[in-house]
Order: sequence, then structure tokens, then C-alpha cells
Amino acid sequence: MLPNERLDDLVVDGLRIIQDDSAFCFSMDAVLLAHFATIHRADRVVDLGTGTGVIPLLLTTRAEDLQVIGLELQPEVAERAQRSVDLNGLTQQVRILCGDLRQVERILRGHRVELVTSNPPYLPVGSGEASPRTQVAMARHEVCCCLADVMRAAAYLLGSSGRFALVHRPGRLVEILAAMSALRLEPKRLRLVHPRAGKEPNLVLIEGIKDARPGLQILPPLVVYEGDKYTPELLEIYYRDQQGGI
Amino acid sequence: MLPNERLDDLVVDGLRIIQDDSAFCFSMDAVLLAHFATIHRADRVVDLGTGTGVIPLLLTTRAEDLQVIGLELQPEVAERAQRSVDLNGLTQQVRILCGDLRQVERILRGHRVELVTSNPPYLPVGSGEASPRTQVAMARHEVCCCLADVMRAAAYLLGSSGRFALVHRPGRLVEILAAMSALRLEPKRLRLVHPRAGKEPNLVLIEGIKDARPGLQILPPLVVYEGDKYTPELLEIYYRDQQGGI
Repeated sequence: MLPNERLDDLVVDGLRIIQDDSAFCFSMDAVLLAHFATIHRADRVVDLGTGTGVIPLLLTTRAEDLQVIGLELQPEVAERAQRSVDLNGLTQQVRILCGDLRQVERILRGHRVELVTSNPPYLPVGSGEASPRTQVAMARHEVCCCLADVMRAAAYLLGSSGRFALVHRPGRLVEILAAMSALRLEPKRLRLVHPRAGKEPNLVLIEGIKDARPGLQILPPLVVYEGDKYTPELLEIYYRDQQGGI
Repeated sequence: MLPNERLDDLVVDGLRIIQDDSAFCFSMDAVLLAHFATIHRADRVVDLGTGTGVIPLLLTTRAEDLQVIGLELQPEVAERAQRSVDLNGLTQQVRILCGDLRQVERILRGHRVELVTSNPPYLPVGSGEASPRTQVAMARHEVCCCLADVMRAAAYLLGSSGRFALVHRPGRLVEILAAMSALRLEPKRLRLVHPRAGKEPNLVLIEGIKDARPGLQILPPLVVYEGDKYTPELLEIYYRDQQGGI
């Protein structure tokens, strides 16, 4: 552990994760995505822009014999994520690679996977207040990759029928769906996340299937809070057993 | 009134509408769209594929001094809609035209409006069971116009900042948003309609603004039933005062 670092509990299966208070810490978005994605035993997975590695770690609790690669651009962030993997004894299942997802064809040449996940930066460069902390800025703003870069990398890694699962902001849904369609990552399943019942959603979870026929299933809303407590469904996501999922 | 016809109550403002049991009768979808669309005093409006004329009739209760044209392909259906207009004394505000929306550039050449509405056929030709009743088949299936035809007509009629309001099935959302974007009817406001809380939506209401900047607002879910009753919000839509709307 380095100065500034802390060890957080991921609740599920006793997983723990190293985070740095001065960097970008994982949020509920990543947890929701890790539970939304469809996953099967022995799937090969790539998480694009993995950050703390929270998505690869949580995915290992959802199915057996996974092989997950977390790709992260920032060397210090990737190194910290790899230490979290080691700490949890998951070295056989999860590998953190340091590299730029825009160069996926070089970094993971010929590598085919069944699932690509991503919790990418949400904000176009120039929108909102850019964080003065560079690691945070790169996680929040599209400084080093834009949505299209993420999707192009996913499309490269997936074979026919492969799945791409994304969490993003509802305000960019039009652009997201159009870009997925254009890359033949046909959007098939969508769920909106509402902070409270009767309020506008602040997150959207989307899964596309490579080369699938058009036709979108929109799931019931996922509501996070009721009063000052998590809803029963949210509690189930955080404290579920290994068969769980949303 | 002709044989097979009946006179239905539109509840709001004492409006009544003539329907034919053997033809396509209006549904809640049209009512929801008429209340979802943004409308201002003195707006010029075109309703594409107006059917019974329910949308033009209901729109007149939402703002003053509207000039609404309902375009309908089928002569008997258009004639019946015009009789409903006459019956309600709305001849000065609503006009039903019989014509093909694919020929809107000829039928309404140079006509510019602030709002275009449409509750088009939902089903691609060949999907689902085609109704043996032709008038019903044309209202349900894309026999005589497809989604792109509707949007092209809307794009022709709207000037910059004009609004396009549509009701459709969630399963076709990807195609709808992409087509709207491509025609610069930028999707700006979206609301999903759920038969019951916690269930998947079965309708989507969408409003686009011509030449607007990207950025979609997704509204809270609209829930129709609670137990065997309408929810308070639905009752308000059906029994609202003239200032109402959803």
C-alpha cells in the first residue's frame, strides 16, 4: 500500500480493492454494470478503461472460469488495479494490461472475447468542470478516448454474437445507440437507473450483441433509493449470492 | 352517422368522436401523444396519418388559436374524421386532408408548421398477424408508409426549431432515434409508458426538435395502471383542465 491509498471492501465474496483518495474511485455505476452484463461460464472478457479494476473483480463472482483482461491507460492506475487482483488471489483469472484502447488492434491483436464491458468517461472534453487532478480528469472527461474509440475497440474484440455492455449518461443515448448500430453492436437490452421512483434517470445500462437483428428490450426501471435507504433490488445487487445479477 | 358507426366521448371539453367498430379505433397511445407534445398558442400543426382525427381534436384543448391539419390516406376514414371535426364545431381550427403522407411535398407544398405529430403503424410488413380488415391493417402495419416516410414528411414540414412528436413501440427505439437524428429532427425529450410500475414499457413518447443540438432528456416513467385502476397521473391526463398536459 502506498501513501494516499486505502483498502475498500467490495462486499461480495469478501473481495477487497485498493483505491487512492486523490485518484478516481469506483462508483455505483461500475457495480451496476458488472451485474447487468450477461455472462456465462468460461467467458473471455475485456473491460475497457478498467480504472481500479472493480468491474473485472466483480465479474469473477458472477460466473466460473472467466478470463478477464482489464485494459487501463494510466500506468499508476493499472499497477494499483493489478495489486488489487493479486490481493484477492485472482491472478489466474484477471490480468491488468496497461495500454491505450485506441491501439487495441496492436495490444490485443487477434484476441477474440465473448464480452466487452466499459464504464467510460461520460463527459465530452470542454463540458463541465475539468478536474485539476489528471487521473480524475482522464476518468471523467473524454480526454484520451471518446465513446466512438471505446466502441471501435469493442467491435474489434468481439466475434459474431459477442456482447458489449456499457454504462453511460441518458443524455447521450441517441449518440450511443447510433454508434453501436453503426458498428453492428446492435443494442438489444437497455435499463434506465433512476435515483428515486418517479424521477428522471441518471444512468443507462446498455447491452449490444454483435451482428444481431434489430429489436430492443427495455427493462423495468432500476430505482436506487427509497427514502434514505437503498431499495431492496439495490441491496440484492450489493449483497447478492454468486448466482445473482440484475 | 353511418351503420357501424358510434359516437364516443373524448371526456375533455365535451369533445366527441365518430368511430367505426369495423375500422381502427383510436387508443390510449393517441391520447398520450396529444398530451405529451409541446404546444404553444397559435401553433400550426400537422398530424400525419390522423385516422379518427383524435389527435387534432385533443390538441385543440391544449392551446388557443391552433391551426391543425390531419392528413389521412384512406378516403372513408378521412371523411369520418372531418365529420367529427364538424360535430365538435372545430371547422375553423381543424381541417382533415385526404392524401398520402409520402406525397407531402405536393399536398402541402411550402407549408411550414411548428409541430408535427404522428401515431403511425407500429408493425413492419410481415411481422405479426395482418388484420383481414384493410382499414385496420393500414393503421397497424406499415403497408402504406414506413417510419422513414413519416419522418421525411415531418422534416419537410418543419422549419428550424420545429417539433416532431411521435408515439411508437420501445422495441424500435434504436431505429427511431437514428432516423430522427439523420433527418436533423434531434431527439430531445423521451418518456417511456409502463402498463404497471416495475414492468417493461410498452410505448415510447419522443419529441425531436429540428436542427437542435444533441442532448436527450429522459422523463420519469409514466405508469398507466395501479391494481385495476388508472394511476392518478393517467386520470389527470384524461380529465385534466385545459392547462394540463404530461
